[in-house]
Amino acid sequence: MIKVKTALISVSDKTDILNILKCLKKFNVKILSSGGTFKKIKKLGFKSTEISNYTNSPEILSGRVKTLNPKIHGGILYDRNLNLHKREMNKFNYSGIDLVIVNFYPFEKVLESSNSEKKIIENIDIGGPTLVRSSAKNYKYVAVVSSQKEYKELENELLKYKGHTSEEFRKKMAHEAFINTAYYDSKVSNYFSKLLNYKFPNKKIISATRVENLRYGENPHQEAAIYSLKDKKFINQIHGRKLSYNNYNDLISALSISKTLPKNIGTVIIKHANPCGVSIKEKDLESYKNALKCDPISAFGGVVSFNFKLKKNLAIEIIKNFYEIVIADGFEKSALQMLKKKKNLRIIDSSNFVPQNTEVFNSNLGGLLIQTSDDVPFLSKDFRIVSKLKPSKKDLKELLFAFHVCKFVKSNAIVICKDLSTIGIGSGQTSRLDSCEIAVNKVHKFKNNQNNESTYAASDAFFPFTDGIEKLVVSGVTSVIQPSGSIRDREIIKFANKSRISLIFSKTRHFKH
Amino acid sequence: MIKVKTALISVSDKTDILNILKCLKKFNVKILSSGGTFKKIKKLGFKSTEISNYTNSPEILSGRVKTLNPKIHGGILYDRNLNLHKREMNKFNYSGIDLVIVNFYPFEKVLESSNSEKKIIENIDIGGPTLVRSSAKNYKYVAVVSSQKEYKELENELLKYKGHTSEEFRKKMAHEAFINTAYYDSKVSNYFSKLLNYKFPNKKIISATRVENLRYGENPHQEAAIYSLKDKKFINQIHGRKLSYNNYNDLISALSISKTLPKNIGTVIIKHANPCGVSIKEKDLESYKNALKCDPISAFGGVVSFNFKLKKNLAIEIIKNFYEIVIADGFEKSALQMLKKKKNLRIIDSSNFVPQNTEVFNSNLGGLLIQTSDDVPFLSKDFRIVSKLKPSKKDLKELLFAFHVCKFVKSNAIVICKDLSTIGIGSGQTSRLDSCEIAVNKVHKFKNNQNNESTYAASDAFFPFTDGIEKLVVSGVTSVIQPSGSIRDREIIKFANKSRISLIFSKTRHFKH
Repeated sequence: MIKVKTALISVSDKTDILNILKCLKKFNVKILSSGGTFKKIKKLGFKSTEISNYTNSPEILSGRVKTLNPKIHGGILYDRNLNLHKREMNKFNYSGIDLVIVNFYPFEKVLESSNSEKKIIENIDIGGPTLVRSSAKNYKYVAVVSSQKEYKELENELLKYKGHTSEEFRKKMAHEAFINTAYYDSKVSNYFSKLLNYKFPNKKIISATRVENLRYGENPHQEAAIYSLKDKKFINQIHGRKLSYNNYNDLISALSISKTLPKNIGTVIIKHANPCGVSIKEKDLESYKNALKCDPISAFGGVVSFNFKLKKNLAIEIIKNFYEIVIADGFEKSALQMLKKKKNLRIIDSSNFVPQNTEVFNSNLGGLLIQTSDDVPFLSKDFRIVSKLKPSKKDLKELLFAFHVCKFVKSNAIVICKDLSTIGIGSGQTSRLDSCEIAVNKVHKFKNNQNNESTYAASDAFFPFTDGIEKLVVSGVTSVIQPSGSIRDREIIKFANKSRISLIFSKTRHFKH
Repeated sequence: MIKVKTALISVSDKTDILNILKCLKKFNVKILSSGGTFKKIKKLGFKSTEISNYTNSPEILSGRVKTLNPKIHGGILYDRNLNLHKREMNKFNYSGIDLVIVNFYPFEKVLESSNSEKKIIENIDIGGPTLVRSSAKNYKYVAVVSSQKEYKELENELLKYKGHTSEEFRKKMAHEAFINTAYYDSKVSNYFSKLLNYKFPNKKIISATRVENLRYGENPHQEAAIYSLKDKKFINQIHGRKLSYNNYNDLISALSISKTLPKNIGTVIIKHANPCGVSIKEKDLESYKNALKCDPISAFGGVVSFNFKLKKNLAIEIIKNFYEIVIADGFEKSALQMLKKKKNLRIIDSSNFVPQNTEVFNSNLGGLLIQTSDDVPFLSKDFRIVSKLKPSKKDLKELLFAFHVCKFVKSNAIVICKDLSTIGIGSGQTSRLDSCEIAVNKVHKFKNNQNNESTYAASDAFFPFTDGIEKLVVSGVTSVIQPSGSIRDREIIKFANKSRISLIFSKTRHFKH
């Protein structure tokens, strides 16, 4: 137990310190404070000694140098059990500082609100992080509070131990302190990375704020939490049970697709992070029904996501099926009432959802793969027609829709569509031929093309042989889009011409694993 | 351009500073240095002023406080274009410091080599990071070198600009500086997280060291790099073309499986991050051939991984097929010679490979999902026999092998095996029934059970209905392992008894998406 005799307070954000001051007064703690904090403390009716008086060294350079002083850092850093240290402290007439309360210049906030490089750089705090790091290093003797979130805990500690702090508390606060300094510098370094356009510096620092702890991970024996890459909650859940790891994984997949489809018409159904039905029909009911019938068996227990405002008539349809999550860009009141009848149903309002990052991290075994995200927009014109038969405008629309969906299906991916809705999706195969077979089987199994209309197929990467595309054509596909790049591209074109289908080569590939 | 008049050097690791000193002397730079660095500089035959003399404030507290001084930080931080700052500098007789060369106490290294909390904590550098942060903040005027890796670049800069530094250089160094301080504190905070057993603190800092930039990501229009979570290369490539993003992704999958199979007998073949053949036969050739014949079409262009030393006879077999990567726990010289005939073939020696982390990160759209890894060991006894027919010891061995492989197949996953080798793998489906169908189809397609022997199947999660398990039984499966947990578990048991197969319920589920 360490009795708090002297506390140093130097806070950029001066709100909420009243209770701390009351508490410190109660235990007769001497307070040292830096310029602005000194004034605030005085205004609140408490006494403190200004650090510049204490050190006999004025605040200089517009406040850039105020606490970077041996008397301050000696007082924090000395080892209370070492005679050498004690002798030196006496010799220089330094005395101990047992509690340090600091919060930093609001770098992250300024970064979001300002474009002035000068202002941003001025908001890189030097003194604050140094005080915090000194104190945390010497947590055996010094307690450090490095954010307002910990004020209440400090108060409780002081009250519980009558003006003392426990080592357990100090260690915990030291942990928070280094998390806060690391987080702070990660934001600063990422700012410089952006300025200099360094995507992959030799050391990468990823910092994220916890949104919530999860009951467990992908499986019950794994522990898990969800973080946000900004200091914000990023999902707006308005009803239902707490989201699980797999829910988050699925809803992230769902939003990836929803938010890239043409606005106000897209329905996406996700299961095991793969889409099992996607439609962009103008009429909302039709869009939903088409997405569902692509694979109604898989849709059971899945996630359904709409990129438009949900109305009552659609809500009535939705509750006929069992979903874990319903996502929409807003809900009409009556629709929400309808859905809320299902107590456990997780409802997400994605109206204000904006994808935050342009990088994707993937780790395992100590390797961390980082790549920019695959953000080719819907209806990219990145293709050329290579078959003799030219696709009509309508055909092209269907093909580009199928190819866009393909991007979100785990490789090898084959998507068959008709009427701007998927009717067969083949995913996650080690052989492209198998993905074709799976997609074709779904079309038949769920009777998605009983009238033998024209259908359209997309492949996320090139066909290495003609067998895959042949399987599609035999099933009734009349038009295909695929990336080029195979040594057999010519054979594929020849096959297309022989089969009298239209064929489009895309320049971009869309592997996703 | 800023002329370097005064440089401050305070380095924990004192190697490699000779050339810097020569260069500084050439341009008549005045040097300030802290205790140990001062001695080293003197020993090398150069002049410098000890900081304690310069500040008139001795190094105290066993070196804990030496540079935390307003004269030093004023000299670094003042704005050379502000009259106020210049007046203050004159008033206190402070002068400018234009270059700061620092490297930190070796916290990360000590962490790896010591268990002494005292020693580890003592190696948290306070003064060094503060000097670096001050200088980087004021990069408009001050150049900072915060690691030995940048010495050469500094020399080149000074030579190029005759003792000056450019703003471009200073900005770049400021970027490196904040990366280094953020990285440093991330390691410190992670140390405290471990001490306190905090897996998911409210802010998570992930720091990683770049292994290499990659030509592109999963697709050519995506940029990418691979990082290691420790300050080390984690893959030992001994031959062949540079690894691509998809290569890394596949080889990480391959090693995940290889390194968890019983030692010295495992072969794994990976395509698109999914296994397409796994075997644990004692004889190496048989192990390989069985893994290959599970799905020879998918294996083409895949990654093959052995958890044993590769001999020549096996190398001869391997080069008959086309692989992107061969991984083994060591290579006999003659085997390596054989493989090296294929110039492009990437060869990885995994003898010294040890998985580093116990956490898996997965990000998209701004959400970062973090979970502990699914590390249930091979042959966990975490199951109970629920059917009337009891599996024999041999049956159990086969079942547990199939279930273990299942863990690494993307969900929904079904693995059929025979003779300790997979013969059919169904992966990445939104419906479990489809995964069963795919697995069964593979058995037939590749004639993997022509003599209609007993076969074994594993499912990564429970069967929600009897249709899936029925499909397996019809195909010849005589024993099944699956996690329990469905409301229809009883129906599944009833079905198993009716079909006279043995059925095992595992307590753990193995979703992987």
